[in-house]
Amino acid sequence: MNSLLELGKRARAAARVLGCCSAGEKNRALELIAQALRREQEAVLAANALDLEAAQQAGMSASLQDRLRLTGPRMEGIAQAVEDLMRLEDPVGAVVGGGRRPNGLEIKKIRVPLGVVGMIYEARPNVTVDAACLCLKSGNACILRGGKEAIHANTALAELMRRALAAAGLPEDCIQLVQDTSRASANDLMTLEGYLDVLIPRGGKGLIQSVVKNATVPVIETGAGNCHIYVDASADLEMAVRVCDNAKTSRPSVCNAVETVLVHREIAPRFLPALKEALDRHQVQLRGCARTAALLPGVLPATAQDYATEFDDYILALRVVDSLEEAIEHIRTYTTGHSEAILTNDLANAQAFVDRIDAAAVYVNASTRFTDGGEFGFGAEIGISTQKLHARGPMGLPELCSWKYVVTGNGQIR
Amino acid sequence: MNSLLELGKRARAAARVLGCCSAGEKNRALELIAQALRREQEAVLAANALDLEAAQQAGMSASLQDRLRLTGPRMEGIAQAVEDLMRLEDPVGAVVGGGRRPNGLEIKKIRVPLGVVGMIYEARPNVTVDAACLCLKSGNACILRGGKEAIHANTALAELMRRALAAAGLPEDCIQLVQDTSRASANDLMTLEGYLDVLIPRGGKGLIQSVVKNATVPVIETGAGNCHIYVDASADLEMAVRVCDNAKTSRPSVCNAVETVLVHREIAPRFLPALKEALDRHQVQLRGCARTAALLPGVLPATAQDYATEFDDYILALRVVDSLEEAIEHIRTYTTGHSEAILTNDLANAQAFVDRIDAAAVYVNASTRFTDGGEFGFGAEIGISTQKLHARGPMGLPELCSWKYVVTGNGQIR
Repeated sequence: MNSLLELGKRARAAARVLGCCSAGEKNRALELIAQALRREQEAVLAANALDLEAAQQAGMSASLQDRLRLTGPRMEGIAQAVEDLMRLEDPVGAVVGGGRRPNGLEIKKIRVPLGVVGMIYEARPNVTVDAACLCLKSGNACILRGGKEAIHANTALAELMRRALAAAGLPEDCIQLVQDTSRASANDLMTLEGYLDVLIPRGGKGLIQSVVKNATVPVIETGAGNCHIYVDASADLEMAVRVCDNAKTSRPSVCNAVETVLVHREIAPRFLPALKEALDRHQVQLRGCARTAALLPGVLPATAQDYATEFDDYILALRVVDSLEEAIEHIRTYTTGHSEAILTNDLANAQAFVDRIDAAAVYVNASTRFTDGGEFGFGAEIGISTQKLHARGPMGLPELCSWKYVVTGNGQIR
Repeated sequence: MNSLLELGKRARAAARVLGCCSAGEKNRALELIAQALRREQEAVLAANALDLEAAQQAGMSASLQDRLRLTGPRMEGIAQAVEDLMRLEDPVGAVVGGGRRPNGLEIKKIRVPLGVVGMIYEARPNVTVDAACLCLKSGNACILRGGKEAIHANTALAELMRRALAAAGLPEDCIQLVQDTSRASANDLMTLEGYLDVLIPRGGKGLIQSVVKNATVPVIETGAGNCHIYVDASADLEMAVRVCDNAKTSRPSVCNAVETVLVHREIAPRFLPALKEALDRHQVQLRGCARTAALLPGVLPATAQDYATEFDDYILALRVVDSLEEAIEHIRTYTTGHSEAILTNDLANAQAFVDRIDAAAVYVNASTRFTDGGEFGFGAEIGISTQKLHARGPMGLPELCSWKYVVTGNGQIR
């Protein structure tokens, strides 16, 4: 805890300087970071090689090793993402509300940085740069606690960014990496009251749950996505197949991929065989209710546990429902509040679905895969919030900010 | 916990109905509540008399008894506040952002209710009606847990409101009062995960701290106000005395009252005696640093503990500082992030103070007492947030809401 407290104090001091920096000063630091990422690429890849070697010895799965791996092209992509950030509007200082009161007081609601942002994340070293630079652009100091699997690459990346900050004349403590990757250090970060204005966990269900249970600092929950598509009786058959196929197979491992398709009984006899034909090309395993099995012989039975599961894989649960009402009830039972879709040509059904489904993103006739900061036009995202306070859905630069009221008078009293 | 779980389930079901109600339906319920408050005034006052009798027997202080007491005029004030809410704009359904994406997707960011709001508060029964009606207007079901001192009046008020909801055709479980006023029931409410979308504690430091430590549901911290005024060397002397006097004495018990006045050494010899003269009329006890004592003989010495204390009373701490820098450092050390003011005629100093002080409301040449939903023009407030996530400063109806993204397409895939 002592070392984290020290990090917290340094972050607070750095945040006070950074919070008053102009967009130009922050962009200059981003520019130097992008340059350093290119210039020092070999050193970062060498550090990453140490991580990968340890991962192989520890028997890490091939797909996790792939997440951990940096390459020349990936490093270039990371550098370009930093340059993209330079072109985004600075969220800090925008006047987002206010006016003149009858007593002459002028009230301005001004966007300001949160202050110090904590991040706990897992094996992907690119998150180290993404998160740090999003925080930098939004005027926040950050304390990053990545996974132990990526500690060598993360350390190289953090040191490189800290040198770039110093070269830009900004406090290098705007970006700090927690070197201790034990579980204890994660718990200490969750309780660093007074030094963290928000903690954002990015990772699996276990990590998010641990943060929600143990944190005493403010938290934004991210990522859990048990997403549904309801295919209404009136849906366009060809479009419904295309959208469900896309939502499942374009990238099954991500949180906005669909996990359960609900089908109205009237369209099910035509839709389900057509969907199966499309999904068979990707070897998607189907698990369905009894009525699904009657239409798709040989399909595995779906349990309540299946409907509650975010597969993140080439597996799809199916259920035939009697009505929109039954679909809404199913979604209300199993939703994680991420992304839910209806495919329909019925205006009243579309409206009822939009009104009654409680999720960050509710879709009519589109793939759930669009829930993403880039797709929403935010330019960048630090995660997808599945909570309702502060930020919901993709979080861009404004969501990394708070506000203050600046009230100017000429001696008003109450 | 079992009974709270039952309340949580009922609140969730009620919130789903309420969330889809029109402004007209919600206003009709508010109208019936206001009517019932007038019609059933005698029954509420009789219930309140039972609370007051118990309070007297328990030796409650006169000022706390006054907070607990309902009277005819106070009941009329409560009813009028409910009618005022009817005239405020419905926050739900407003489109607060969005646009058309290059792929044709139409994205709308729409304000929606949070869902279920929990409130833990202390002895003032008027909060029961205020909080319930703010939640109702913003489309949220609420679970209210007031203090045991007010249980009779709170029960009468909650029952009256529930009957009015039923008469308006809305679920009466939109408003529920926790009958168990033990500490255990408060702790159970703090951990009612999945059923509370936010918990708002309103009360003393002990309550707020307990919620921050123990809650696993999202929380908005409210109310802690260790507020400062810095009197710059360039301040208008007469105005500075008037503002500091007002900020301390117009209502010392509230969170936006000033607790410490910092004075630049150049103006201190003229300002401090004039301030003392004004404050002596209200018998304000002064506690100052050594330089204050040199200028105001007989003043009590101020300790670090004094500077850290929210007196909420006719007590003011004073400190002479050498510079704006020293004033900012003092405030950064002791602020609770509520309301901070500078009195100055120096534009650069005003700007530096506004930029560098991190608080919900930062004032230039006005009393800190204006941090209030009514004074800010919000029409109503459920509390004053001293945290940075979701809501900062006075929280009105929009702050009791979240958002959802509604995305409409014609078969877009990614």
